[in-house]
Amino acid sequence: MAHSRGNLFILSAPSGAGKSSLINALLTKYNDMKVSVSHTTRSPRPGEENGVHYHFVTVDEFKALIAKDDFFEWAQVFDNYYGTSKQAIEEQLAAGIDVFLDIDWQGAQQVRKLVADVETIFILPPSKAELESRLNSRGQDSAEVIAGRMAQAQSETSHYNEYDYVVVNDDFATALKEIETIVLAKRLSLQSQAIRHQDLLVDLLR
Amino acid sequence: MAHSRGNLFILSAPSGAGKSSLINALLTKYNDMKVSVSHTTRSPRPGEENGVHYHFVTVDEFKALIAKDDFFEWAQVFDNYYGTSKQAIEEQLAAGIDVFLDIDWQGAQQVRKLVADVETIFILPPSKAELESRLNSRGQDSAEVIAGRMAQAQSETSHYNEYDYVVVNDDFATALKEIETIVLAKRLSLQSQAIRHQDLLVDLLR
Repeated sequence: MAHSRGNLFILSAPSGAGKSSLINALLTKYNDMKVSVSHTTRSPRPGEENGVHYHFVTVDEFKALIAKDDFFEWAQVFDNYYGTSKQAIEEQLAAGIDVFLDIDWQGAQQVRKLVADVETIFILPPSKAELESRLNSRGQDSAEVIAGRMAQAQSETSHYNEYDYVVVNDDFATALKEIETIVLAKRLSLQSQAIRHQDLLVDLLR
Repeated sequence: MAHSRGNLFILSAPSGAGKSSLINALLTKYNDMKVSVSHTTRSPRPGEENGVHYHFVTVDEFKALIAKDDFFEWAQVFDNYYGTSKQAIEEQLAAGIDVFLDIDWQGAQQVRKLVADVETIFILPPSKAELESRLNSRGQDSAEVIAGRMAQAQSETSHYNEYDYVVVNDDFATALKEIETIVLAKRLSLQSQAIRHQDLLVDLLR
């Protein structure tokens, strides 16, 4: 069987919906699924590694990459820049790897304009109360910061209807299975299967 | 949770690809998936029941239904008519049931023109040799009939690229899982989830 080109997915969610944990669980299970590593100008948090969690760059370096049109999408969120390298994603897709873009609704809008064949998934928390509890349980932030995050989460959530798929992260295993289902279904699309099974199609149609 | 409207699927395949067995296995597993029962003017085969496998009608009865615009799609194949009742499908979809149309490429073309939101799946046999072996193993037909069926299978297969998804029925359990994946992914689409989780969305956005 020929290997088919990978598929591009966007995963967005309000903070606290559990998106990162879901993506990590999926990457652990499948070695042909990867998450895009973004560039950012913000400072690394404890435990974050350059090149693994983000490519950490200065504002000047980031602006130089914008000038070179090296970003698939980029955004300024508060005082920091975030962007997704075009070249790295293209190489992974060509190698047959499914690539997840872990970006917000603004990034998703930019990518949709550039790429016709992208499947977009929005992840929701199971309730407002649970979301607030999850944001509190980090135990690192003040009530004011949490209130700000709740407002930010609501703003992000208001864009759910721009996405192809919606997954509710109530039970983690169920939500994981659902994202997996969406990704695996895409592999069965005509476009992918026609390449994967080209020898069979020649055999059947000769 | 509110129940969402069911989704409509078309499953087509050359004779011998194993489509009927796959559909039957799926219906056994899920009570909210049904296959549309078609009308036909052909004679029942041994074991076929009226209203279960087909609605068996006369040519005059069939033509009267065409005149009443009671068919979603209909076709003449060789000397026989086959058609799909609009009303029965609409009732099932409204009840939240996923409905499979087991029709050929001509029927699929007609349905696509009438319904924007239909997912179409084409099932392939694993090889030409295996297809011929499957068509022979029925042991009811002459070599000439089998050769005719192979030609018919090739003609049907040539339309695979009109479908959204392609599934290869090499290993039955795998093919079954793949069709299931396509159907379950569709249930996670924005359109279905926005209805199913409308209370949650109100909660998160209030």
